[in-house]
Amino acid sequence: MSVPALTLYHNPQSRSAGARVLLEALGVDYAVVPIDFASGQNRTPEFLAINPLGKLPTLVHDGAVVTEQVAITIYLADRFSAGKLAPALDDPLRGPYLRWLAFYGACFEPALVDHAYKREPVVPSAAPYRDYDTVIDMVATQLARGPWLLGERFTAADVLWGTALRWTTGFGIVPKLPAITGYIERASALPAFVRAGEKDAALMAELSAASAAG
Amino acid sequence: MSVPALTLYHNPQSRSAGARVLLEALGVDYAVVPIDFASGQNRTPEFLAINPLGKLPTLVHDGAVVTEQVAITIYLADRFSAGKLAPALDDPLRGPYLRWLAFYGACFEPALVDHAYKREPVVPSAAPYRDYDTVIDMVATQLARGPWLLGERFTAADVLWGTALRWTTGFGIVPKLPAITGYIERASALPAFVRAGEKDAALMAELSAASAAG
Repeated sequence: MSVPALTLYHNPQSRSAGARVLLEALGVDYAVVPIDFASGQNRTPEFLAINPLGKLPTLVHDGAVVTEQVAITIYLADRFSAGKLAPALDDPLRGPYLRWLAFYGACFEPALVDHAYKREPVVPSAAPYRDYDTVIDMVATQLARGPWLLGERFTAADVLWGTALRWTTGFGIVPKLPAITGYIERASALPAFVRAGEKDAALMAELSAASAAG
Repeated sequence: MSVPALTLYHNPQSRSAGARVLLEALGVDYAVVPIDFASGQNRTPEFLAINPLGKLPTLVHDGAVVTEQVAITIYLADRFSAGKLAPALDDPLRGPYLRWLAFYGACFEPALVDHAYKREPVVPSAAPYRDYDTVIDMVATQLARGPWLLGERFTAADVLWGTALRWTTGFGIVPKLPAITGYIERASALPAFVRAGEKDAALMAELSAASAAG
């Protein structure tokens, strides 16, 4: 039995949900190391040695550690699906693809955290994202052009955005605008999303059983 | 006279400083559109149509808009220096390269904003970066291995980190640890940093003169 070169440190109820969907979409062989937050497995010395932030997703590929959703998405799609799920380096969509991925990490997530915690805005020159309403409007406007983030073409960016919008609308920190909910429905119906959901449901059952037994 | 396919919307005293250094390092032909904050040029309808966040850097390449420092860095280095300033897609350094770039946008900048504004931390599961001290320690530890972020090899990630650490230590929001100041000195001495600095000084003089005349 061969050992997969790819290991995903994962919890279905975390930012790593999208990484699992992407691995399913790529059709590559990968191992999962479940990380149970309740028992502090993201704070063990062993895990913090791999990712000092104690965050998921954390990916190890042939010994190289890759963290951060945006990096993992770009890395995996380029490596295993260049020119397909990732626009090639000279594709006119390459810039917009990278833009919307970087925007996710640098603008969307910080805007949602500040909004959820009702934080006072910072001065405009320091603000990484202008304001929450502008960020949500940008996303909804882009998705309304659809069917995917970059138009007709489905890319790895849709895996990140599709999973992220699903949980953020679920938590009520992103409004359920038609352009956004329609997009989530289209993404969630894709085979990779369905397969990842089934595997994650099984994993959650295992984690719950282990927790109950412990 | 040919019109450069690359246009950088730029202000030397903004997040676009690193994009200018990278363009110099790549040796490509590019046009600069100066954006004067004092007169609100980042809030004109024309500029907001390109980047609704009103942020710099904003890059337009052959009509495609690329925003966000992390996206612009990955995009330009892959496009004009694949295998050199950007590790190739199958290079073992590719994952760490993307990790440290994504970490910049998703962890380092948000940590600095929260620290500068003395904001209360959010619950760990919502926090994108654990805490400020951990983020600074990660950066300092990585740079202490040096001479560059990924070790012996200088990459486009050093352009982003070199310029960012220079202004953040200058503002006192990142501590002047030896590993960090040594790195800034090494980066600042490189020809691309020196050339960009000279061109930016000339641009600032132009903007000041225009402002005084207005």
